[in-house]
Amino acid sequence: MPTYTAPVKDLQFVLHDVLNVSQSDTPGYDELEADFTNAVLEEAGKLTGDVLAPLNVVGDHEGCRLENGVVYTPTGFKDAFEQVKEGGWTGLDMPEEYGGQNMPYVLGTAVGEMFSSSNQAFTMYQGLTHGAAAAILAHGTDEQKNTYLPNMVSCEWTGTMNLTEPHCGTDLGLMRTKAEPAGDGSYKISGQKIFISSGDHDMADNIIHLVLAKIPGGPEGIKGVSLFIVPKFIVNEDGTPGARNGVSVGNIEKKMGIHGNSTCVLNYDEATGYLLGEENKGMRAMFTMMNEARLGVGMQGLSAAEVAYQNAVDYAKDRLQGRAVTGAENPDGPADPLIVHPDIRRSLMDQKSFAEGARAFILWGATMIDAAHRKGDKDADGLVSLLTPVIKGFLTDEGYDMTVKAQQIYGGHGYIEEHGMSQFTRDARIAMIYEGANGVQALDLVGRKLGTDGGKHVMAFFELVKSFCKDNGDDEVLKDFVEPLKAASKDLQAAGMYFMQNGMKNPNHALAGSNDFMHLFGHVCLGLMWAKMAKAATSQLASGTSDAAFYETKLATGRYYMARRLPATAMHLARIQSGADTVMALDAEAF
Amino acid sequence: MPTYTAPVKDLQFVLHDVLNVSQSDTPGYDELEADFTNAVLEEAGKLTGDVLAPLNVVGDHEGCRLENGVVYTPTGFKDAFEQVKEGGWTGLDMPEEYGGQNMPYVLGTAVGEMFSSSNQAFTMYQGLTHGAAAAILAHGTDEQKNTYLPNMVSCEWTGTMNLTEPHCGTDLGLMRTKAEPAGDGSYKISGQKIFISSGDHDMADNIIHLVLAKIPGGPEGIKGVSLFIVPKFIVNEDGTPGARNGVSVGNIEKKMGIHGNSTCVLNYDEATGYLLGEENKGMRAMFTMMNEARLGVGMQGLSAAEVAYQNAVDYAKDRLQGRAVTGAENPDGPADPLIVHPDIRRSLMDQKSFAEGARAFILWGATMIDAAHRKGDKDADGLVSLLTPVIKGFLTDEGYDMTVKAQQIYGGHGYIEEHGMSQFTRDARIAMIYEGANGVQALDLVGRKLGTDGGKHVMAFFELVKSFCKDNGDDEVLKDFVEPLKAASKDLQAAGMYFMQNGMKNPNHALAGSNDFMHLFGHVCLGLMWAKMAKAATSQLASGTSDAAFYETKLATGRYYMARRLPATAMHLARIQSGADTVMALDAEAF
Repeated sequence: MPTYTAPVKDLQFVLHDVLNVSQSDTPGYDELEADFTNAVLEEAGKLTGDVLAPLNVVGDHEGCRLENGVVYTPTGFKDAFEQVKEGGWTGLDMPEEYGGQNMPYVLGTAVGEMFSSSNQAFTMYQGLTHGAAAAILAHGTDEQKNTYLPNMVSCEWTGTMNLTEPHCGTDLGLMRTKAEPAGDGSYKISGQKIFISSGDHDMADNIIHLVLAKIPGGPEGIKGVSLFIVPKFIVNEDGTPGARNGVSVGNIEKKMGIHGNSTCVLNYDEATGYLLGEENKGMRAMFTMMNEARLGVGMQGLSAAEVAYQNAVDYAKDRLQGRAVTGAENPDGPADPLIVHPDIRRSLMDQKSFAEGARAFILWGATMIDAAHRKGDKDADGLVSLLTPVIKGFLTDEGYDMTVKAQQIYGGHGYIEEHGMSQFTRDARIAMIYEGANGVQALDLVGRKLGTDGGKHVMAFFELVKSFCKDNGDDEVLKDFVEPLKAASKDLQAAGMYFMQNGMKNPNHALAGSNDFMHLFGHVCLGLMWAKMAKAATSQLASGTSDAAFYETKLATGRYYMARRLPATAMHLARIQSGADTVMALDAEAF
Repeated sequence: MPTYTAPVKDLQFVLHDVLNVSQSDTPGYDELEADFTNAVLEEAGKLTGDVLAPLNVVGDHEGCRLENGVVYTPTGFKDAFEQVKEGGWTGLDMPEEYGGQNMPYVLGTAVGEMFSSSNQAFTMYQGLTHGAAAAILAHGTDEQKNTYLPNMVSCEWTGTMNLTEPHCGTDLGLMRTKAEPAGDGSYKISGQKIFISSGDHDMADNIIHLVLAKIPGGPEGIKGVSLFIVPKFIVNEDGTPGARNGVSVGNIEKKMGIHGNSTCVLNYDEATGYLLGEENKGMRAMFTMMNEARLGVGMQGLSAAEVAYQNAVDYAKDRLQGRAVTGAENPDGPADPLIVHPDIRRSLMDQKSFAEGARAFILWGATMIDAAHRKGDKDADGLVSLLTPVIKGFLTDEGYDMTVKAQQIYGGHGYIEEHGMSQFTRDARIAMIYEGANGVQALDLVGRKLGTDGGKHVMAFFELVKSFCKDNGDDEVLKDFVEPLKAASKDLQAAGMYFMQNGMKNPNHALAGSNDFMHLFGHVCLGLMWAKMAKAATSQLASGTSDAAFYETKLATGRYYMARRLPATAMHLARIQSGADTVMALDAEAF
């Protein structure tokens, strides 16, 4: 059975040594003193390690079941969900007026990493609720907020997001679900939605579905899509759940992973819905929270990699197999532990340097979201919008690869379900797909975000890299970081230049390189994060920290990333610069 | 439901246009005329496409079940296995004296690709039988051969390979299974073996287990391991299966994939076994057929990629989503098919160029195995031994990645089990692990094969590349191939040089780069294959073929590989040249 230990110390390192959150002037950040965040993280660590992690395998083995129209979650989920509610975890970063604690998003993100590592499928019930509540918070009327938010912030009621239909995923303009005005201000929603995470279950008194649908007579395509609140039970005047609404579960999907989450086909049959935000502005309303939602999925890439890595390390230290080529390291035993072998080290260092770099990247992103929301920082908003597809696409692609590497360390024991390593891989796979498949992230990055505000935000990113390199280029320790970062950043600039010079003539020259650009950008971001972490570590070492081993390990892990992972940027650049010709050469019939 | 269409034309292209098999002086190759191989492949294509492919999903959903000690295979497997036996497929490349058809291994490999693509889990029942029969053929006494081979060649009896025990996989010297001499020339085998593919089932009258065990009093470790024939039913004097032997099924493993194959825990309790080959030479006997076995697993990487690709192409042509950035290509429809999008093309071209390159690589390898076995060609034997870990490790790593890419094209529909794309990924995962995990392949390549015979074989490989480049460097069409191949080969030579210069001082400098070296080598091999395929295609085009579109497509696909995939070699080289320092920097406690 796999285990999970919350990486509290690593999170604290990023929050305080690297990001200096409590020194920030973002409103609310003054509360984020190291002792306080440590207490919060320790508490979350206990819940996730002791309660949620042991249920992860249970959820995978049992899955959810549909009986007579009722969905049952796996053994133990309901009790655990009560504990999560009682701990107040679900409202950590929600407004106090609706029962939340109004903590910055960055703290919610740090806690979220733990929840997701310990039990991704379980955590999605909260995660979707958070997303739906955030949309109501941003676009709801006061009445809607008062009706739904208190119960959603406490997770007494959960939420869902209903976008996909059988024939349309990314291209939501093709949507067929209809919303007919009922005459009383409400609408009758009819249609079928699929892939609805947490679509129905037995852990909450009500489920608040946010549903995209078209009001007949509205504009064609994506411009005619509106967003509706469709509660499972229509809420009575007194705020209690009342009559059952016209939404039913058609099926629970059989999936590769996240079996503990009920992914439903939902059938809407003249269900009562209430317009959220404006008519025909549904996409805008749905996507207001897009940066957070996508950052949250990027985090799942990290979360999966982290927990898989922890178990791979345990196994590599424990499993005796073969001898170190440089001489036995466990001469009294029948063999040496796997961890003596260089190729096992290589794999573990890939995983470790990814997880720690990704953690810094995500938390940095979260501080920018806070800066945008809490003090209207438009530059932060622009930069995090640019980086969001990188966080989502790069971190989930890489996170998945890391789970595959962790699984590989177990050999055949990683392929059987007994040790849980297969589950990490199977669960991690979905993050590359949902909340905008990674190809769509790459398209968003290259086709839209790069050019936003005349390219101002990407220039700001390069400026960040440049000033770091300038300020630290003379440091003896940091030069192992500055030189590779410079080279990688140069590759990224060259790729951007290629798009500018060739994408105008033929946009395919840009789009054919979009996936590589996203990965190239991701490596530069993680390179920058490692450079910043190295700087933080050298500062601590210079100041005579009592925990030198911890900071020396950070430096060594960072050096690995710079030496072994960053060279990928040149490959991505070469592919990008080969343009669209070989990509688009064939007629469709030739495939 | 996924479908499979055997790529007969592509196989014929490699066999005849590229490898010119019927012109070879390897004994038996004169039979491999194009019409003959086409007839064989067409016939195998029907069986695999019509019978085995539809059972693939069935096997995945049902799995195998153990009831009262008896293992039952999924619905339809037994009937299909009868059809395979009746077609004589299982003895295609086995000797005529035991009922086989004595066809070259290269033809068996071409047919094997189809079998494995259509239903990997099912095909393993034959595959293991083939391996066990080959070991008996190589090391058995005449009596053993006569007793077992006719029924194994026909697959009336199947075979298994028993190496792994709970505490030992790669490091077989730790083995505990014992073989006590019974006094009558036979042995009593006792112990537990795990992960035994096709370990028990209901499709054959007998199962011939080949079991590694230690004879008490023999040498310590791997040098004291012997190989035994342990039939499920002891064979009577008249050749019929007789008394049940002391081997029982402890469990069927729950696995990530290949559910249709019964992966068993087998308990041996004083089972009667017969020594195969010499005492304490068990490893040598088991590994005589290693090149073929590993090539067969490398083929599974191709097979999985091929069938996943075929289904991804169908979906990409069929699914309407979004519009081409360069203008609608399906203006009368609600949207354009996915295949218009450059990033979808990029993914499909990755898959296509991999599968076709891998096919050529494997069949080339198979011709070398034939040359070694059929005419004692020591150079061919040396070269294919060198390339075997590359074929196994690189092609299964890449093959798995390709199934992930194919799955991604389906978006959410790839994550649910309904379309079968998840299964291709889950099934393909095992090939990276069994028959020597890919880390062990990389170790074998760098730690052993590179230096075999004083490095003679790797020099022969470089010579092959060099002479191709020299002979074709002036060709206007082929220069798109020659230049990248030269650059990639230079990277491979530089990597080898790095190992020579640094591995002596510290072997970790070589082993830390072993995985990257295997991948670097793999890319150079596929680059060479594409160069050879391009040459074959240009010859056909120059001679005025009536099928120009087919050969033009080969050239375009090859150009993609050279432009987009080969640049990976520089990244691998950079990693290798960073040495072991960052890889080995941390103490085990720091992980």
